[in-house]
Amino acid sequence: MGVEMFVRAILQQKGSEVVTIGGDATVADAARTLAHERIGALVVTDGGDLRGILSERDIVRGLAESGRDVLDAPVRSLMTRRVSTCGLDDDLDTLMSTMTEQRIRHLPVMDGGALAGIVSIGDVVKHRVGELQVEARTLHDYIETGR
Amino acid sequence: MGVEMFVRAILQQKGSEVVTIGGDATVADAARTLAHERIGALVVTDGGDLRGILSERDIVRGLAESGRDVLDAPVRSLMTRRVSTCGLDDDLDTLMSTMTEQRIRHLPVMDGGALAGIVSIGDVVKHRVGELQVEARTLHDYIETGR
Repeated sequence: MGVEMFVRAILQQKGSEVVTIGGDATVADAARTLAHERIGALVVTDGGDLRGILSERDIVRGLAESGRDVLDAPVRSLMTRRVSTCGLDDDLDTLMSTMTEQRIRHLPVMDGGALAGIVSIGDVVKHRVGELQVEARTLHDYIETGR
Repeated sequence: MGVEMFVRAILQQKGSEVVTIGGDATVADAARTLAHERIGALVVTDGGDLRGILSERDIVRGLAESGRDVLDAPVRSLMTRRVSTCGLDDDLDTLMSTMTEQRIRHLPVMDGGALAGIVSIGDVVKHRVGELQVEARTLHDYIETGR
């Protein structure tokens, strides 16, 4: 079953930084920020409050539906407004279920109403790989020492 | 540790269909196909041969680096040419490691030199969730029946 892993531990490793953008910025600005930061989604905030999330997927769908002029549109016109979030004490399995059921790749982490980080599907898989390595080492030690 | 899951089983559930595009198609065509098919990457083929992969990420980075005219460029100018692939007998843990190490979200499946499917990071997490549900049920039955 492995060691149970929580959002808190993921953020301890990756940090709590969240790249945000304002709803008035253009979609072209958002694309540049995503590429520069090498990330897949931006949290859209307004005076510190979570307003939405804008992913690479949202941009590609916007281009497909509205053509290239969508790049001049404000981020708020393309962002996803109903944002699923998670908490510091949620475990990895819960995150995996949420991402699968909602077909999303990013979950902002909320701590008492404030943005405390963001976890991507890549983070989840990376930490699951870490768990598997611990399991393998534990089994190896068990076999080596006979206990 | 759970039931070991292989690529073959994932494809049995999701099917072996791979959405492909030619290298001469435009990036705008690719964006429309990605949105229409509700997927994150297209395999680029030339007469049936695997030439590269083009993801939502590649398009957003192309926009950031080259501006909106990149939408008129051919897919081959933006695709990733060095494509990591997997085989039908690879297990889920191997896929997770590959995706984590290479920071990629899609692995075309090759079977004897031919394209046999594609596995996304979303598929991997979805099947891991399925494994966890089996584990939970097994534990529950064990406790209920005392063996």
